[in-house]
Amino acid sequence: MKLVVQKYGGTSVKDAERVMNVARRITDTYKAGNNVVVAVSAQGDTTDELIEKAKEINPDASKREMDMLLSTGEQISISLLAMAIEKLGYPVISLTGWQAGFRTDTKYTNARIKTIDTERLQAELDRRRIVIVAGFQGLNKYDDITTLGRGGSDTSAVALAAALHADVCEIYTDVDGVYTADPRICKSAYKLEEISYDEMLELASLGANVLHNRSVEMAKKYNVKLSVRSSLNNNEGTYVKEVSQVEKMLVRGVTRDNDVARISLCGVEDTPGKAFQVFGMVAKAGISVDLIIQSIGDGKTKDISFTVAEGDLDATLALLEENKGIINAREIKWSNEVSKVSIVGAGMVNNTGVASGMFEALSNAHVNINMIATSEIKVSVLVARKDAERAVNAIHDKFLSK
Amino acid sequence: MKLVVQKYGGTSVKDAERVMNVARRITDTYKAGNNVVVAVSAQGDTTDELIEKAKEINPDASKREMDMLLSTGEQISISLLAMAIEKLGYPVISLTGWQAGFRTDTKYTNARIKTIDTERLQAELDRRRIVIVAGFQGLNKYDDITTLGRGGSDTSAVALAAALHADVCEIYTDVDGVYTADPRICKSAYKLEEISYDEMLELASLGANVLHNRSVEMAKKYNVKLSVRSSLNNNEGTYVKEVSQVEKMLVRGVTRDNDVARISLCGVEDTPGKAFQVFGMVAKAGISVDLIIQSIGDGKTKDISFTVAEGDLDATLALLEENKGIINAREIKWSNEVSKVSIVGAGMVNNTGVASGMFEALSNAHVNINMIATSEIKVSVLVARKDAERAVNAIHDKFLSK
Repeated sequence: MKLVVQKYGGTSVKDAERVMNVARRITDTYKAGNNVVVAVSAQGDTTDELIEKAKEINPDASKREMDMLLSTGEQISISLLAMAIEKLGYPVISLTGWQAGFRTDTKYTNARIKTIDTERLQAELDRRRIVIVAGFQGLNKYDDITTLGRGGSDTSAVALAAALHADVCEIYTDVDGVYTADPRICKSAYKLEEISYDEMLELASLGANVLHNRSVEMAKKYNVKLSVRSSLNNNEGTYVKEVSQVEKMLVRGVTRDNDVARISLCGVEDTPGKAFQVFGMVAKAGISVDLIIQSIGDGKTKDISFTVAEGDLDATLALLEENKGIINAREIKWSNEVSKVSIVGAGMVNNTGVASGMFEALSNAHVNINMIATSEIKVSVLVARKDAERAVNAIHDKFLSK
Repeated sequence: MKLVVQKYGGTSVKDAERVMNVARRITDTYKAGNNVVVAVSAQGDTTDELIEKAKEINPDASKREMDMLLSTGEQISISLLAMAIEKLGYPVISLTGWQAGFRTDTKYTNARIKTIDTERLQAELDRRRIVIVAGFQGLNKYDDITTLGRGGSDTSAVALAAALHADVCEIYTDVDGVYTADPRICKSAYKLEEISYDEMLELASLGANVLHNRSVEMAKKYNVKLSVRSSLNNNEGTYVKEVSQVEKMLVRGVTRDNDVARISLCGVEDTPGKAFQVFGMVAKAGISVDLIIQSIGDGKTKDISFTVAEGDLDATLALLEENKGIINAREIKWSNEVSKVSIVGAGMVNNTGVASGMFEALSNAHVNINMIATSEIKVSVLVARKDAERAVNAIHDKFLSK
């Protein structure tokens, strides 16, 4: 008998009809002869509504009490989902995070899973019950409820799959799987049958928004085979797993990220440690810097350009203004009319032609490149936002056309 | 240092403003140098809304899953109340039923408290924290969440007071305390300073609707001093405690209960065991019978009259109709245009004049008496519903006028 772990997000269980739909999906899997463990998120906007209630009373509430409050969201959805499965006539039990054995560290609102005590879970599976587990939550060493922060329910599902040695962990979402590019901006984009953990990690952080990085990292660590699928249809999804090194495809996907802004410090003093000084200051303020390029100095001055998330632009500019005496740049330029376009693929590590092919495609499409950054399995370029869609299509045609 | 246990019902915490109001009340008690433990119900209509959500999915959901669902209501209110107290700058922690050590039997939706493991509670009090406990809930031997049924939060508060040997258990409600009669129908009614457990039990079951009987029974068993007060003002409430036998007042209060219907079986066979036959049948159907009178038979036939809750009238009549062959009555009469009026007082056990004084008062007020029942500390009469208010005032004037 196989063990299948499934995860359903908040939109998949947002109302009674969706809950019944998910219940049927679960019982279909059970009927096919599998044991089934399900991790569920809070329904639709429940979490936001609870946060609103808290803010009305105390905008600076302790994180410990926030977790006590927010964890009710998943407790509501597990009980409702269990009731729906009862209605379909199958044996089922819902378990809160602590009942399912999730033990975390003490970092409220953003806790890390330390262990899962599977005794109760295993006992329920031995009774051939479908087990519905509250995602996103656990218990710390003080016996207090914690929540796992962003992407927490995905992480709960992967942790369950790892602890129970499940055959597969199916992540149900509102997209069909992982695509070679965003189908909304690239008509020739198609769904990938499979992808490696590392590729998925790059795609996730580049704005593909399918799986949270934490869950992919955990899946990689414990070698959990993931399947990303839609809860609204029966299409085969995309498998995320350890893919063998011999790749037929150099490139897996093209992504566009509009949440980016560029800042250029022109004519700063060309001395060692200048970059360290600037980026140390920015990091201290809690702002993440992504792409960085530095012009080759002439011994006197050089230019340093970098990108930040668009939402951090104002704070970054204010910080630079405050410290302009230290930075001593001739001019500070910026733009939020830019996008980051990236190609990802484990195959490119052994193939030097990928970056140049990408540049050629962009050149043919008359897309000007602002900045370039490369890693073993990705190449990112910064382009004008108006050109980004054209850039994605040009690159997709070059590397991924069928 | 004194230990005060307080209980706030759903209407007392129904919105952010009320929650802040309750928080100030709690911190006032704490500031006065007391340790404070608080039991809270779910906010306003939360429980009803959760039941509605469940019904939409599965009207026959298991009780175990209902408890999983409903227990979130109190978990929401404890965290919000704790946040409100944090805002006022006092040390506080919220605890679910299981965190507070409530262990119950396995009867979901109507569980009984078996023990309270006070280790965590005591540790929090030792840190001089205000402790906010989710009322109405506990954990059974399977580590599953249970709820305590009607009046559950009152019972939680009394159980906390008993387990922690509190100096007093203050039950905050929307009335000022326990009155000699319902002030809405009796202008001369006034608030009692104190009342015995037994008197309170009779008053509660007679429709005074202040405290649930389960909580009063537990308070009596563990000798917990109760104070019934309003959460909306600072008036002294009513103490419920072991009152010494020497009573200056014969009668404590007069109550009216409209939730009653009378059924008369006229001309049934006058044989031993007839009453047993009838009431056995009714009890088997889960219907509670209250007052019973039986006419003195003439050796051939007799009349049996009894009262049931008004909501049970139709079911009772249907049951009697089904079994009319067995009952074999000449005629079955019924009325729901009746009320039960009762006087309660521990003093009347040693004073035979109370019942006759009551009948005299009713006679003077031209109120006809349908049925009479007496116990050691109460006398109840059934009267026409239109006469009930007049009856309450006449009796109050006779025994309780100041």
